[in-house]
Amino acid sequence: MRDVFVVGVGITSFTRLEYPLIEIGAFASVRAMLDAGLDRIDHLYVANMGGGRVNNQTALGSALIDHLSLCPAGAETIENGPASGASAIKTGYMAVASGMHDVAMVTGVERMSEVNNLEATDFVATLTHPLAENIYGVTLPSLAGMFTRMYMEKYGVTSRHLAMVAIKNHQHALHNPFAHVRQQITMDGILDGPDAMTNNPFVSDPLRFFDCCPVSDGAACLILATGDVAKKLGKPLVRLSGVGQATDTHAVHEREDPTNLLAVRGAAAKAMAMAGVKPSDVSVAELHDAFTILEIVESEEVGFFKKGEGHLALERGLTKIGGQIPINTSGGLKAKGHPVGATGVGQAHELVLQLRGEAGKRQVTNAKIGLSVNFGGFGNNVVSLVFTKEG
Amino acid sequence: MRDVFVVGVGITSFTRLEYPLIEIGAFASVRAMLDAGLDRIDHLYVANMGGGRVNNQTALGSALIDHLSLCPAGAETIENGPASGASAIKTGYMAVASGMHDVAMVTGVERMSEVNNLEATDFVATLTHPLAENIYGVTLPSLAGMFTRMYMEKYGVTSRHLAMVAIKNHQHALHNPFAHVRQQITMDGILDGPDAMTNNPFVSDPLRFFDCCPVSDGAACLILATGDVAKKLGKPLVRLSGVGQATDTHAVHEREDPTNLLAVRGAAAKAMAMAGVKPSDVSVAELHDAFTILEIVESEEVGFFKKGEGHLALERGLTKIGGQIPINTSGGLKAKGHPVGATGVGQAHELVLQLRGEAGKRQVTNAKIGLSVNFGGFGNNVVSLVFTKEG
Repeated sequence: MRDVFVVGVGITSFTRLEYPLIEIGAFASVRAMLDAGLDRIDHLYVANMGGGRVNNQTALGSALIDHLSLCPAGAETIENGPASGASAIKTGYMAVASGMHDVAMVTGVERMSEVNNLEATDFVATLTHPLAENIYGVTLPSLAGMFTRMYMEKYGVTSRHLAMVAIKNHQHALHNPFAHVRQQITMDGILDGPDAMTNNPFVSDPLRFFDCCPVSDGAACLILATGDVAKKLGKPLVRLSGVGQATDTHAVHEREDPTNLLAVRGAAAKAMAMAGVKPSDVSVAELHDAFTILEIVESEEVGFFKKGEGHLALERGLTKIGGQIPINTSGGLKAKGHPVGATGVGQAHELVLQLRGEAGKRQVTNAKIGLSVNFGGFGNNVVSLVFTKEG
Repeated sequence: MRDVFVVGVGITSFTRLEYPLIEIGAFASVRAMLDAGLDRIDHLYVANMGGGRVNNQTALGSALIDHLSLCPAGAETIENGPASGASAIKTGYMAVASGMHDVAMVTGVERMSEVNNLEATDFVATLTHPLAENIYGVTLPSLAGMFTRMYMEKYGVTSRHLAMVAIKNHQHALHNPFAHVRQQITMDGILDGPDAMTNNPFVSDPLRFFDCCPVSDGAACLILATGDVAKKLGKPLVRLSGVGQATDTHAVHEREDPTNLLAVRGAAAKAMAMAGVKPSDVSVAELHDAFTILEIVESEEVGFFKKGEGHLALERGLTKIGGQIPINTSGGLKAKGHPVGATGVGQAHELVLQLRGEAGKRQVTNAKIGLSVNFGGFGNNVVSLVFTKEG
């Protein structure tokens, strides 16, 4: 396998965007090409989940490659639910590593605001088990609510711990100009005080409004290339050093212990083994906090903390910028936003900025190794990536 | 790059199937695993276009990998419109060639009959240009009708030539137990005779009913693996020796001369160059005849015949089984059927049977090299594959 480097990154604001899906993807792609200093690529992978249903646009790869005037380069769409982004990065990795292509562009894009929030929730629920979950009205928030309750009972996590994730990630997002929600929140207001129930109503007990990520539009792009190309372009060298993926049962209730996210554990372990690093080597991480509980659990499953102790580490401030292992410096899905197909690419975008030292006021000092977890389904198809600063 | 071999193939009938999408995909996958003699794989790529919209099922890769009890192997869905199948095979190729995975399963599946034919046509039209085509009611049959008219005027192709493609491919399909339409047709009945207009009405002038492929359900599966695995399993060795892809403008009217299918030309040339073969070396081909005209034009663009002479070769019987270069021995999309995501994998399935000498009554004698063209969009994203019999 050839080594694979990130030579360009680009992103749009994650927010509600009044542009067609293709345009949003193009914005991030063009920014990444400008960042790389490239005017040609060999292949495009588009990560997207809702094009065919939400936006009436299929074959998005073909649409975007033409819109960018990059024909005759080939293109495909990669879909893996909320993990589409990292799955597309994995595919781009293989394209370059195999020798098939020298420069592969990976653009994640979603425009969910074309439908209302209820329809968006219904659409995302199409990734659940059709016979055991979806048909009974199960949605991602409802699965996450039940999962949270189990975790609280087993490990002593409380609503205050959940709120701490939200408060931290909202704080981080204040320094990310592309974040969807740049609003400082405090315990007083979302859990305490007379207006807490109005400000922060229940969505899926015990999860409240501020425990859930927003429905966002947006795009992010990563350009991957060989070492030769990377050296010629001259950006700080960031290598995609680890790629791991694992699946778990489709129906959550079939898991022996649903509080174990085995696919997160497996994917991260594979990615770190491939990169030759341990959890304690990681400088900065982007974990998939579509719901606040997930950041806590993933921080355990990847090996940063012992099982059942993630909330204690959070309480001690270990996962803030400046802490032992800063998590979701971008604001995470919680505050940066969650345009489904773009999310995994957005995570990688943040890690690359951190490793390049280009993360501005949210920069983690001396960041050398970044890890992401992109959580597909309700943890049934997870992709983890490791990025390493070289030289 | 490591060499990549086909170690197992499986298919369902291409027809109207009263099973859920996931089940249909599972049937073909299990058959391929039985054919290979494997009970584990490392990764699954699912080719599918309509899951999210037509079947209310996204993240189909995750669904199928669980349904097959193959967790924790990873999975993704690859979408490239009607070329999704060959795009997924290309992705599987890279997975094995790169060293990422040793055994990659590629399952193409579609269940279009969940909606009626008009809705299916509307859905497929979501791959056209959103501003220049789709919004004006352009569909694939309408683009193909206009394209056919131009080709007739420029090169002297007639309705009789179009009918000859249908008659030949229906004849081939009589010997394919998995084909959707196993019905012999003759000129007398579809173009001549008193009932021709009733039997064969216009769909999109000059294209008539028998010039258009049916709307099918079905699945096909290919298992790709390293040479080491292939030698251990002991099936006749068929190597995936060439993979080519090219794109063209999204809007058909933007092409300098729309009668040139440059992406077909480019993709096939790349695939053959990679395999080290010339058009005259090819023993058997599966070309994407969603409309009869396309088989004629593709037979020219891949280099079997000179531009504008494909219909003359057809007239002389050169593309029948027993002819110089048998095309669509399976029956093609025209008679075998066109379950969108499965189509490209189905083409590969036929070529592998031919190279193994397992094609029964439709066997091409001494078949050594097979070529497929999987046509995405209206020729704006084309993937071509070459398979070579080894030893």
